[in-house]
Amino acid sequence: MKILKNRNPAVPGFKAAGLDCGIKDNRIKDLALIVSESPATAAAVFTKNRVVSPGVTWSRRALAKSSGSIRAVVVNSGNANAVTGSKGLKDCDAITKKVAQELGIPQKEVFIASTGIIGVPLPSDKIIKATPKLVTELGGKVKNWIDASEAIMTTDLVSKSDRISYSYKGKRIFIGGITKGSGMVHPNMATMLGFVFTDAVIDSKILKMALTEAADRSFNRITVDGDNSTNDCVAILANGKAKNSAIKSGTLGYREFLKALTKLCKNLASKIVLDGEGATKFVTVRVQGGKTRKQAYLIANSVATSSLVKTALFGEDPNWGRIFCAVGNAGAALDPDKVDVFLNKNRLLKNGSPTNLPPQKLVQAMKQHEIDITIDLKCGKEWEEVLTCDLSYDYVKINAEYTT
Amino acid sequence: MKILKNRNPAVPGFKAAGLDCGIKDNRIKDLALIVSESPATAAAVFTKNRVVSPGVTWSRRALAKSSGSIRAVVVNSGNANAVTGSKGLKDCDAITKKVAQELGIPQKEVFIASTGIIGVPLPSDKIIKATPKLVTELGGKVKNWIDASEAIMTTDLVSKSDRISYSYKGKRIFIGGITKGSGMVHPNMATMLGFVFTDAVIDSKILKMALTEAADRSFNRITVDGDNSTNDCVAILANGKAKNSAIKSGTLGYREFLKALTKLCKNLASKIVLDGEGATKFVTVRVQGGKTRKQAYLIANSVATSSLVKTALFGEDPNWGRIFCAVGNAGAALDPDKVDVFLNKNRLLKNGSPTNLPPQKLVQAMKQHEIDITIDLKCGKEWEEVLTCDLSYDYVKINAEYTT
Repeated sequence: MKILKNRNPAVPGFKAAGLDCGIKDNRIKDLALIVSESPATAAAVFTKNRVVSPGVTWSRRALAKSSGSIRAVVVNSGNANAVTGSKGLKDCDAITKKVAQELGIPQKEVFIASTGIIGVPLPSDKIIKATPKLVTELGGKVKNWIDASEAIMTTDLVSKSDRISYSYKGKRIFIGGITKGSGMVHPNMATMLGFVFTDAVIDSKILKMALTEAADRSFNRITVDGDNSTNDCVAILANGKAKNSAIKSGTLGYREFLKALTKLCKNLASKIVLDGEGATKFVTVRVQGGKTRKQAYLIANSVATSSLVKTALFGEDPNWGRIFCAVGNAGAALDPDKVDVFLNKNRLLKNGSPTNLPPQKLVQAMKQHEIDITIDLKCGKEWEEVLTCDLSYDYVKINAEYTT
Repeated sequence: MKILKNRNPAVPGFKAAGLDCGIKDNRIKDLALIVSESPATAAAVFTKNRVVSPGVTWSRRALAKSSGSIRAVVVNSGNANAVTGSKGLKDCDAITKKVAQELGIPQKEVFIASTGIIGVPLPSDKIIKATPKLVTELGGKVKNWIDASEAIMTTDLVSKSDRISYSYKGKRIFIGGITKGSGMVHPNMATMLGFVFTDAVIDSKILKMALTEAADRSFNRITVDGDNSTNDCVAILANGKAKNSAIKSGTLGYREFLKALTKLCKNLASKIVLDGEGATKFVTVRVQGGKTRKQAYLIANSVATSSLVKTALFGEDPNWGRIFCAVGNAGAALDPDKVDVFLNKNRLLKNGSPTNLPPQKLVQAMKQHEIDITIDLKCGKEWEEVLTCDLSYDYVKINAEYTT
């Protein structure tokens, strides 16, 4: 396993809580709050879906109004507050107002996100009623962070958290985060959310730049079923407790921060793929030797989203024909006669022609839980990686047997 | 059932044959030939995959060399002659040369296509050996056409043919065709091929224009799993036996021909969707009220290819959240607050908000074999329709359990 167990995501100066406010049945936690003790800069990236939940609209506005200062993140599961008409935004207003009151911070510094069923009005009264208790439960212990990470789960089988730290010029900088998602979208029950916290000193513009770059190598490079939800978002807060000299664009300090942030985001994103609906394989599709990153991405994404490749992975069938076909089908220019394709360490195609490796060797490779598909275009130096899982009976079962 | 049974595709002046030349095991037919008794104009549209089989390359060249005159179409199943290196084109040369000799026509007037396993050299010797017998078996009877339509099948469960005719200025014009395909691609075993024949008088340029337009409303608007194969092609031959005054661009005669050709192509394409791998539903996704055709197409295609929508269809779950999410996810501009969504005759969403129809009514609608999903963008007059099927356990089974 490339993926380590959950690490305690606690970052100095942040407190977390999670509890059951009654949105979901069966006393399952459904409301999380994470707060910075001191003012914090913030940035977020949101779904590219044209249909977005009121929470996305609200949080985009909060970031704009506060000029990138966010102190609190409130998240509910069990209800996506999506396609809920004008009531949706009113609910966001009421909840963030209550959270701000209880914390004694400006309302515009409260970020809100939701995940769960679409088209059902959000029971905001339950959230508002539970807010005082939620605030009293805020803490920096591992238990508090586990509560928060569990409270944002929907069809996830496991909670997901991670933390890394690094030293730079004598200061130790922590970056921790929690995430949820098991289909890239499962719009009645799920969505992809990620919340990342750091004690670095960094302004919101540079933070946005780093988050965008990191997400493009992590959260935006995973696919379970190829869809974006109405609610997807990844947010980051930075409270400056590390007292490093401020991270500036174009410096070594920025590159170190970006590297650490990207690694953390990739670990969190990998956990989503590992928990993909019905997944039995963890698959890394790497395209290298690309002329442009876009070309490499289009091809990697075409392979990673091909139902034919994904069913072959489930069937443990080393079917390079499907891989090569998906390469050609990406809508990206390429020279097929140059392409090499590898399955783990085995070269299946060299210069676009089969290498005729013994099938038994390939069948053996396909039996692994982790599969690396590497495609070398041999026309440049750019690369992209997309993480995916296989398409199994259980994916169909999970998604077909949910009844409205 | 919207789709009628196979009709005899025979068109005056064309002869067909199909036999077992030994590419496939078990004495299954695997070689087809269709020939025009007199010179014929021709046009074809090919896969957009960047990896194409030598047969596609060869036939493109034949159309160019002959200036759009094709007399014979030779097709084998059981082997795609794809990713076969330089031998692939040599095999095309040898086969078309032999067919031309036996028929006494120029080699450049022979069109070739293949479907079947990828990466295995084509046993062209078997095809060449069987060619004299194939030519002696050519005939215009229904049996000959059934032989030909069966000889191009791979994972297809049924052969597919159709014919229509119409009168124009006192002349009766026939258009008939055969097709195959059951995944839009299943690159080790299948591909989409269509061959259409007409006795209309029409030059190859106008024929190309009509075929392109017709394919964009039919063969290019079906999806089983969203992929293009390396070998997909649709070709049309016109031998002029109807002795109509030549069909010219921009005339009523052109519009009548295009209408008939589109209808035939749509019937043939529908048969492919009905025979989709593991399909239990026949689904028409119609987007209307579009500002542009491209916008309407992107949205229809996003809904028709969404694994979440397709599994919901299999599960008979009237999950409008998934449909609306796929609408937003199409990468096309739209105003979500204007969108209406219908399932058969039931309006699920009005102006982007749920209509809260009784679930039981929708569950009933989902139990039909034919499902119409209609999305009205209410921002213009353009429309597009994409035909698709559901994503079932059997799709996974068929595609996972094939072993190399």
